[in-house]
Amino acid sequence: MFKTQYDYYFNLVEQYITGLVFNNDQLGSSMNYSLVGAGKRIRPVLALACIEIVGGQPKEFVREASSIELIHTYSLIHDDLPAMDDDDFRRGKPSNHKKFGEATAILAGDALLTYSFELLAQPLSTVSPEKQLRIIRETAQAAGWQGMVGGQALDTLGDALDCNLDAIQQVHKLKTGALLIASARIGAILGGGTEKEIDILTQYASLLGLAFQIKDDILDVIGQRDVIGKPVGSDERQQKATYPVLLGLEGAQRHLDETIAKAKETIQSFGEMNSFLLQLADYVADRNS
Amino acid sequence: MFKTQYDYYFNLVEQYITGLVFNNDQLGSSMNYSLVGAGKRIRPVLALACIEIVGGQPKEFVREASSIELIHTYSLIHDDLPAMDDDDFRRGKPSNHKKFGEATAILAGDALLTYSFELLAQPLSTVSPEKQLRIIRETAQAAGWQGMVGGQALDTLGDALDCNLDAIQQVHKLKTGALLIASARIGAILGGGTEKEIDILTQYASLLGLAFQIKDDILDVIGQRDVIGKPVGSDERQQKATYPVLLGLEGAQRHLDETIAKAKETIQSFGEMNSFLLQLADYVADRNS
Repeated sequence: MFKTQYDYYFNLVEQYITGLVFNNDQLGSSMNYSLVGAGKRIRPVLALACIEIVGGQPKEFVREASSIELIHTYSLIHDDLPAMDDDDFRRGKPSNHKKFGEATAILAGDALLTYSFELLAQPLSTVSPEKQLRIIRETAQAAGWQGMVGGQALDTLGDALDCNLDAIQQVHKLKTGALLIASARIGAILGGGTEKEIDILTQYASLLGLAFQIKDDILDVIGQRDVIGKPVGSDERQQKATYPVLLGLEGAQRHLDETIAKAKETIQSFGEMNSFLLQLADYVADRNS
Repeated sequence: MFKTQYDYYFNLVEQYITGLVFNNDQLGSSMNYSLVGAGKRIRPVLALACIEIVGGQPKEFVREASSIELIHTYSLIHDDLPAMDDDDFRRGKPSNHKKFGEATAILAGDALLTYSFELLAQPLSTVSPEKQLRIIRETAQAAGWQGMVGGQALDTLGDALDCNLDAIQQVHKLKTGALLIASARIGAILGGGTEKEIDILTQYASLLGLAFQIKDDILDVIGQRDVIGKPVGSDERQQKATYPVLLGLEGAQRHLDETIAKAKETIQSFGEMNSFLLQLADYVADRNS
């Protein structure tokens, strides 16, 4: 049931993203390369699920949900650059700059980010333009210096990497949390949710993002991750402050379980409608990669 | 009179941009460094002038005009990166990555681009949200793979650099023309211009952009440019196809004069209101740097 629903959302996003047509040149190929056939699409899936939970029609807003994936993809391309995390591989294939060169990778990232706003500003017949402007504002804020880019700066430039829980939570809240929260909020707004519902889904997404990060850190330690291009166990995360480093592996697992429990609690008020998001929380906690 | 008017627009933009507050960290400092006290602000000035020529109030839309300058600034930061044009200096001071490092420069560019859309999506009381969405769409299109980034890709990756006029016009039309055109269109739309007026100002801005580029190429050859960090005459443009290379210096000057004359002709229908834009065309043609 959960898998069927996930696949339904996932396929809507895949279909939309695969249908995007860029120029048939190096820039367009590079944009496509990182965008197509990659990843779990968890952000647009979350957005579509939040549309549905507040009573909207996910199918009407696949473009808007997918535009968040464009932002996520651009951030991965730029994060992988030699000046940043210097990753040669991403999702089992050469990273964008290894395949197309650094100049193209920088430009492809810029173009995907810019295009996401072009998509978010396309006319919609069932949502007021005021709401659309709000969505654009919230997306930009979540993706920019007060959100994702700010978190990436803290992480890469290292100012805030004191070895304590508050510091790493702050980094992850911005770096991965902000865009997950934006996905949920945008879904809730597009679906016609009340401010109360938007707030609840914000809480949920915030906890989901935290759970995601704790699980990521745990997976890095227990070495089940398929990190191609890096020997298992050599990931530089292990030299950084991570949840297992700070709490121990058992402590991190307990923190994960508590976070998932809290996430589920926040969405109780949706009644039976909440089953997908309940299971999405378990999915994040139980995944092996 | 022209200078007074230019200074008026310029100061509105300077005041707005100087008032932007980012975090007091490396990312925020880097964003500020490239944004503040730099350049002629020709894009926002053009936008403000186009608001006024169609009968709108420039003072009401300084934020929107300035957001174009954020996009321009991000593009300069990324263009200067080692993987791109590899410029150590910009406007008489070390380029962003020389001052803050490559990682910060990449992120500062990303953040400025993202923030420009956050600013463009702020509520406006005198313009319909439909029009605002149109402005965001047009800006994103002009800045992205179909516009500025596309032009930068052609220029950097060199696919289209055959030594002929059509090829270099195509590059410049995208790389510098698209954002100038967007500035004029956004001004005309915000100011309440008719579709006819928007079209005319599109034509004007397109010719202004062409003139700008021809003059740039001429200045590079006659060596009056204050290119700090590079010996005069060593600019790599001279190995590339430029207007003086293709047309000779006199031919390029003639092409510039014709382009300026055409630009002025397009705005005849505005009557006396057009004096600033007429003089702006002369300013672009006559500048020495």
